[in-house]
Amino acid sequence: MGMMHSPRTAQADIAALAAEMFDDIRAQSADTAGVSRPAFSDRETATLEYLAQRARAEGLCVHEDAGRNLLFCLPEHEHAPRYTVIASHVDSVPMGGNYDGLAGVIAGLMVLVAAQRGLRTLARPVRVLAMRGEESAWFGACYLGSKILTGTLPDAEFSTTHKGDGRTLGAHLEALGLDTAPIRSKTPLCDLDRIEAYLELHIEQGPLLVERDLPAAVVTGIRGNFRYRNIRCIGRAGHSGAVPRAYRHDPVLAFGELMHRLDGTWAHLLHTGRDLVATCGIVGTDPARHAIARIADEIAFSLDIRSQDLETLDRMQTYLDDEMADIARTRGVTFDCGPQVAVAPALMDTGIVTGLMGAMDAVTGHAFSMASGGGHDAAVFAQAGVRAGMVFVRNRHGSHNPEEAMEIDDFMVGVDILSTYMEAAS
Amino acid sequence: MGMMHSPRTAQADIAALAAEMFDDIRAQSADTAGVSRPAFSDRETATLEYLAQRARAEGLCVHEDAGRNLLFCLPEHEHAPRYTVIASHVDSVPMGGNYDGLAGVIAGLMVLVAAQRGLRTLARPVRVLAMRGEESAWFGACYLGSKILTGTLPDAEFSTTHKGDGRTLGAHLEALGLDTAPIRSKTPLCDLDRIEAYLELHIEQGPLLVERDLPAAVVTGIRGNFRYRNIRCIGRAGHSGAVPRAYRHDPVLAFGELMHRLDGTWAHLLHTGRDLVATCGIVGTDPARHAIARIADEIAFSLDIRSQDLETLDRMQTYLDDEMADIARTRGVTFDCGPQVAVAPALMDTGIVTGLMGAMDAVTGHAFSMASGGGHDAAVFAQAGVRAGMVFVRNRHGSHNPEEAMEIDDFMVGVDILSTYMEAAS
Repeated sequence: MGMMHSPRTAQADIAALAAEMFDDIRAQSADTAGVSRPAFSDRETATLEYLAQRARAEGLCVHEDAGRNLLFCLPEHEHAPRYTVIASHVDSVPMGGNYDGLAGVIAGLMVLVAAQRGLRTLARPVRVLAMRGEESAWFGACYLGSKILTGTLPDAEFSTTHKGDGRTLGAHLEALGLDTAPIRSKTPLCDLDRIEAYLELHIEQGPLLVERDLPAAVVTGIRGNFRYRNIRCIGRAGHSGAVPRAYRHDPVLAFGELMHRLDGTWAHLLHTGRDLVATCGIVGTDPARHAIARIADEIAFSLDIRSQDLETLDRMQTYLDDEMADIARTRGVTFDCGPQVAVAPALMDTGIVTGLMGAMDAVTGHAFSMASGGGHDAAVFAQAGVRAGMVFVRNRHGSHNPEEAMEIDDFMVGVDILSTYMEAAS
Repeated sequence: MGMMHSPRTAQADIAALAAEMFDDIRAQSADTAGVSRPAFSDRETATLEYLAQRARAEGLCVHEDAGRNLLFCLPEHEHAPRYTVIASHVDSVPMGGNYDGLAGVIAGLMVLVAAQRGLRTLARPVRVLAMRGEESAWFGACYLGSKILTGTLPDAEFSTTHKGDGRTLGAHLEALGLDTAPIRSKTPLCDLDRIEAYLELHIEQGPLLVERDLPAAVVTGIRGNFRYRNIRCIGRAGHSGAVPRAYRHDPVLAFGELMHRLDGTWAHLLHTGRDLVATCGIVGTDPARHAIARIADEIAFSLDIRSQDLETLDRMQTYLDDEMADIARTRGVTFDCGPQVAVAPALMDTGIVTGLMGAMDAVTGHAFSMASGGGHDAAVFAQAGVRAGMVFVRNRHGSHNPEEAMEIDDFMVGVDILSTYMEAAS
């Protein structure tokens, strides 16, 4: 690594810098609980300005792109024709945690700072990209910033309205001074061919690394999903005491059987080595009609099925359709699934995954990989044809809430994995 | 049967009388949908007065008891020391059907009319009892009239308030002119020792007789029940995409498994010849917290388990406790059942059941018996030590709703079973 001074002290200095930046931004964006950094807002702009000021103080170059995102690089890479992007977003959900998004941006900056301070080397040019507008909480649609950059923002999302002020995304973008013509015509705002690879560090949004006692992980893919917002299972009402079992059309028991089968199918697919999660987060009988002594006439519920493997999603869809048809037939109920929403999985580039695994092994002595359950900007770049990779950092209590808790030591393991990867990148 | 005129014509005359009385009372108590005859109301009093007028026109004796219920009998039985009571209630639920309750009263009157007209004989004295206040819809507690008569009205129910005007039951009884001192001291208002047997005809509240194509049935017992209004299954919230199956504490899947096991246990107990119905009529995740992409932290649901056999209820309780404990252990969730409400089953008298079965066989050529899922005044008398029996009449669309539909021909089969039983009663 070619350092003249104590590497331990130098590393501690970088950890302290990162911690100070997290604290400053947390203080700037504090809400009554957690932090709020709305997408495409002045608060987001102020966060980017703070990052620019700190980066300039470290001797880094700072540029704003056509999406009013910021790009950071070493002075010697300012005119590099091709580069690796290390990116994440600076917005947060309302009253969210400080690390979802921001950790990835500061991680990228710390990779540059370590190189600028002569502690690490970069085998290839790197641009750190601090993006706006990833969280769906503000406009109802997610990855807006990276969709704008890659020219993939759907028309409907350009017109989607802000949950707070009711103004469209387009109006918000124009207020920020963006030229929205290329966005509407789906022209990428950045030259995707110049991006050799896209890397993103993110806090893990599940409990796996805490449970496994691991500081970080390499992400193999971002799960796609199919979802039903409101499946109705329709049976027949009746007196709870007076209708014998053989004459019931009980949608609650039909739902129970579907959940039981779904759970069994899920376990089976996991046993065969597939990646899958399945969630019914919303369920209910109708409060206007239900009663203790009345067989319900209907139950409504949601389903969210995710996998990083499209074939597994297809298979699960087939199982689910078959099971609903079978339960409908045997129990005399009907299922009305309503509209389905689907998002394709995004696999990370196998070369990058292998490289990051090697880097993690070098840093921690143990490489670990996992799927990402939540979606990330990395999926948008991967789907736009950019080779992508992600690193997860251990985090307690999930994300999108004020209790989100990442340790700075774990964060620095993630930074070290990125630096080690970029030192070896060919 | 000792009739001088065409028995077919005479029977048709009685059917026509019954139909006319049903129609008149329906017209008197019509609501925007169905009928409303509130418990202990002027509308209920008017219904009793109409019945008294029609009974007197047939030459029957009419008496009011200390509960302001009406008693009807043949003139020759006015001073009989002991008698069989044929009873039911005249109140209805709000916007209910016309037959729930009223059918039993008019059936008793038709038994008396057939005897008074010399078409049938009564082997034992009969008093037809038209009661007030059976439906729980008005004061939140059921069988108030029969509990008052048998001296078993709980103190809490004396003070329970009317859902509409907020006044207590006690105040309503005093407004009707009742002496409430014996009610409060739990002194029976009637001499239970004088009642040789208690018979009640009621429309079936389930679909069994329609499904089996039978006009009537003899009731073997009235199911008791245990109920939980609000069981909470508490798990742990999490990101629907990011938490692997092994680390979930999903209360919705725990509920699904409980329903699946409950259904299996129910089928098993039916296969071994036991009487049982089980219903979860209310279930829901919390609308203030649930989301499609969030593993729920909690689900709440009701349970209503009914059997005419106390041992089956006890066994079901044990199974349920064991299954909840097992699911809680294996899934890392907790069940908080909250308060349980239990009502003991009431078996009908085996001698009366046998006699009614013989009567039904004589009338229809086929005797059929079943349990009652709903509760009835007969259970109150049975629990007060009176030998009781019930006859169900086929009815479409359940009860407690305006679509309730009994055919007058089926009703007359039920009347014929009661007359035939009383002809043979020893």
